[in-house]
Amino acid sequence: MEKTLKELAESVGGEAEGDVQVRIKGVSGIKEAGVGEITFIANMKYIGELASTRASAVIAAPGIDVGGRPCLRAKNPYFAFAKVLTLFTPKKKFPTGVMDGAHVSPEAHIGRDAAIYADVFLEAGVKIGDRSVLYPGVYVGDGSSLGADCIIYPGVVIREGVKIGDRVIIHGGAVIGGDGFGYATDGGKHFKIPQIGGVVIEDDVEIGSNAAIDRGALEDTVIRRGTKIDNLVQIAHNVVVGEDSIIVAQAGISGSTELGRYVVLAGQVGLVGHIKIGDGVQVGAQSGVMNNIDAGETYLGSPAMPHKEFLKIQAALRKLPELRKRVIYLEKKLEKYTRTEE
Amino acid sequence: MEKTLKELAESVGGEAEGDVQVRIKGVSGIKEAGVGEITFIANMKYIGELASTRASAVIAAPGIDVGGRPCLRAKNPYFAFAKVLTLFTPKKKFPTGVMDGAHVSPEAHIGRDAAIYADVFLEAGVKIGDRSVLYPGVYVGDGSSLGADCIIYPGVVIREGVKIGDRVIIHGGAVIGGDGFGYATDGGKHFKIPQIGGVVIEDDVEIGSNAAIDRGALEDTVIRRGTKIDNLVQIAHNVVVGEDSIIVAQAGISGSTELGRYVVLAGQVGLVGHIKIGDGVQVGAQSGVMNNIDAGETYLGSPAMPHKEFLKIQAALRKLPELRKRVIYLEKKLEKYTRTEE
Amino acid sequence: MEKTLKELAESVGGEAEGDVQVRIKGVSGIKEAGVGEITFIANMKYIGELASTRASAVIAAPGIDVGGRPCLRAKNPYFAFAKVLTLFTPKKKFPTGVMDGAHVSPEAHIGRDAAIYADVFLEAGVKIGDRSVLYPGVYVGDGSSLGADCIIYPGVVIREGVKIGDRVIIHGGAVIGGDGFGYATDGGKHFKIPQIGGVVIEDDVEIGSNAAIDRGALEDTVIRRGTKIDNLVQIAHNVVVGEDSIIVAQAGISGSTELGRYVVLAGQVGLVGHIKIGDGVQVGAQSGVMNNIDAGETYLGSPAMPHKEFLKIQAALRKLPELRKRVIYLEKKLEKYTRTEE
Repeated sequence: MEKTLKELAESVGGEAEGDVQVRIKGVSGIKEAGVGEITFIANMKYIGELASTRASAVIAAPGIDVGGRPCLRAKNPYFAFAKVLTLFTPKKKFPTGVMDGAHVSPEAHIGRDAAIYADVFLEAGVKIGDRSVLYPGVYVGDGSSLGADCIIYPGVVIREGVKIGDRVIIHGGAVIGGDGFGYATDGGKHFKIPQIGGVVIEDDVEIGSNAAIDRGALEDTVIRRGTKIDNLVQIAHNVVVGEDSIIVAQAGISGSTELGRYVVLAGQVGLVGHIKIGDGVQVGAQSGVMNNIDAGETYLGSPAMPHKEFLKIQAALRKLPELRKRVIYLEKKLEKYTRTEE
Repeated sequence: MEKTLKELAESVGGEAEGDVQVRIKGVSGIKEAGVGEITFIANMKYIGELASTRASAVIAAPGIDVGGRPCLRAKNPYFAFAKVLTLFTPKKKFPTGVMDGAHVSPEAHIGRDAAIYADVFLEAGVKIGDRSVLYPGVYVGDGSSLGADCIIYPGVVIREGVKIGDRVIIHGGAVIGGDGFGYATDGGKHFKIPQIGGVVIEDDVEIGSNAAIDRGALEDTVIRRGTKIDNLVQIAHNVVVGEDSIIVAQAGISGSTELGRYVVLAGQVGLVGHIKIGDGVQVGAQSGVMNNIDAGETYLGSPAMPHKEFLKIQAALRKLPELRKRVIYLEKKLEKYTRTEE
Repeated sequence: MEKTLKELAESVGGEAEGDVQVRIKGVSGIKEAGVGEITFIANMKYIGELASTRASAVIAAPGIDVGGRPCLRAKNPYFAFAKVLTLFTPKKKFPTGVMDGAHVSPEAHIGRDAAIYADVFLEAGVKIGDRSVLYPGVYVGDGSSLGADCIIYPGVVIREGVKIGDRVIIHGGAVIGGDGFGYATDGGKHFKIPQIGGVVIEDDVEIGSNAAIDRGALEDTVIRRGTKIDNLVQIAHNVVVGEDSIIVAQAGISGSTELGRYVVLAGQVGLVGHIKIGDGVQVGAQSGVMNNIDAGETYLGSPAMPHKEFLKIQAALRKLPELRKRVIYLEKKLEKYTRTEE
């Protein structure tokens, strides 16, 4: 596929500038791009590379000097880049229907043009929406449903009683609806509490490889629309994650904790159970959150605290050995001084 | 199923109080419960909800004022709740025998009424106990054995030389018996050390989704009876975990470390290798344990220390920037004062 | 199999000492070893056990007093032990060819004596090298290739566009080539950026159970020759890991970060994105690395710092509550003193 810069700008909603008839057939990084490719400046750190790029055009925000090159101007150049790249990325063609070697309950319902690969196992009452793709080795338990246009990569386990919306992507090996980690301990023995809640995954959620999202104890675990979850993330029973949140790799959320909308948890963050995290909260990498956080706050540290406080404490901490010496010096000075005086 | 409060109390070992003939058909949370359901007060935080619950009965400890409602009195109300919920949760019926599409070695032995789903693969010498269930996509390697009444969820990998007891539950995607991470480094190259030990998982152990428990190097890795392991936990070669321990999600235990009984490791805890953790030790979330811990201690922090010390240091740390200012003030004051005096 | 000590020494490149004709038929730990077995002293901590071991011979470095026992002297006794153990560990025999129940595209190419188990799924254009073993439930996507003598354990997912070298071992449930976690956020919505890079895994790499290695965004993610990656490790898009590095369990590397050769990341370490870690860098357990690290450095802490600085700060931190008291005492003393003087 090839498009003129003008056509591209029209497709993604920006303005073409300079030689708008230049033909573009692909997208690449600023260093790697060649003739016929468009590149982008999303991070001012890389603006110095612009002079030497071989790209035929560049995506940039208004006001950035691109030295007269053909340019696609966009307020959010990274978003424009993502849309241009999507345009140039061919969509994989899937074989439709149920392949030989798949195990589909006669009481399951498969939507139109869905792709059910070999070694998929669908239990009774399962519903798969139109055009959804289930790669080899996917298991879907009793009565669970997937909406339309989902992509479920190989080896994903979806247990019984899970409701998944439209356009959900689940990467390889993720487990949705495993039993929550709940026991009643009596006389030192841990008695398993049946986990009879389900999991609700709303539209446009993406879940990373080998992530684990447990089913609820009595009520459901819920991941709301548009939220993106990275690899190896742990989400415990009865957690609720609000819309359009971002949970980076290896983060973990303990039972019954509730996140608002637009929350960002960086990598390896841990949240204790039964707390509430407000809308738009950002938590820095490896932080450990022990208490509720109000909307809009940025937290850092283990235990986590407001990030300005964290930075102050870290700065003081780096100088702690020196502070210690200064106190010892003060002690000696005062000691000597008061002795002289006495 | 429906039971009177009296029958319930008899089943789970508590005392019925008030209208003991009230009929109960389910269990629910205190806010969600409706007529015909029983709820529970295990945490005094929720006692305020009692006035407005629509539940027909409540499980509570002796002495708690339930305002005259029908009540199941139990010393450990959470345990009573778990037993009542188990009573009301229907047991899933499994198809018994070996399903079409399973791959079972002629030299494997399958117990009575076991359920071997499609796409299960059992190598030579495998033994599966009576009534155990192996969901689709489970692999069991040469000579490994499972006891009776186990549930092995989809995609679990059990390598060769693994011995699993009775009533063991392993959640989706967990890998038992992967090679330990052992190399001899010579001239900068890492030479793989064969990992010829096995794994022993005793009775009543539960292992979470996508957990990894490595086989031993020369001897076995051992998880003792009644221990519960959460999702995404890492257990390295030659680790021994004692009875009735709890290891929360994303915790990791390095090679040859030994845990006693009743140990609790909270989420994302890390333990270095070759240390001993005594009976009943509790380690707080995200802690990093570098040394042996004596029985009964509670540890916190990275590096971990006794929790009282950790709390003191944290309190002092929060005030460190202020302490720094106070030292600077002292320095100035003393400077000024001694200068005046000189 | 049985070998004399002399034969063993010749095989692994050391010197036999004492009764060089003693017959050895296995290897064991110093406590567990019996007659006919050889054991090793790699760690001086265990030298006290030497007097009571029942082993018929011992592997030890030159100069270690083994009390006249038959001894295999080697400069690197742990490496010699690994080679002796490899010698005594029988190689598993695999059935060769494509087993019933495997799903192999007519456009895939399988090397000589490769073993393709049941429920393996190979898409079009896949190439599998000679003698490589793919256990049940392995998926390999369009156009991906594996070299010779690889072992791919059950349930591994290898997506499209992945190039794997020779003698690579991938443990159960690992996912190679899942989409990188990349979104362009516009108006609060996260728009998925196609991840069109691949993954390159060079020769002699080993990857642990349930690890996740994402495909690149535009360019490839690369794991260079000889690097060993433990269980549950996360490697994000466009990361480059240099040769002969060691990445311990549950560590995570964020996008576009580059590691040199001989880097060691201990367990649960986290690295932010877009940084460079020099050759031979060692990062202690649970550390969080926020910035570039020069070659040869050892870092520790979250945020990570040079380990000597970390140890100084930790020592000072343990005495911080006491330091606080000393400052309060100084304040009182100076207050009292200056008051007296005024």
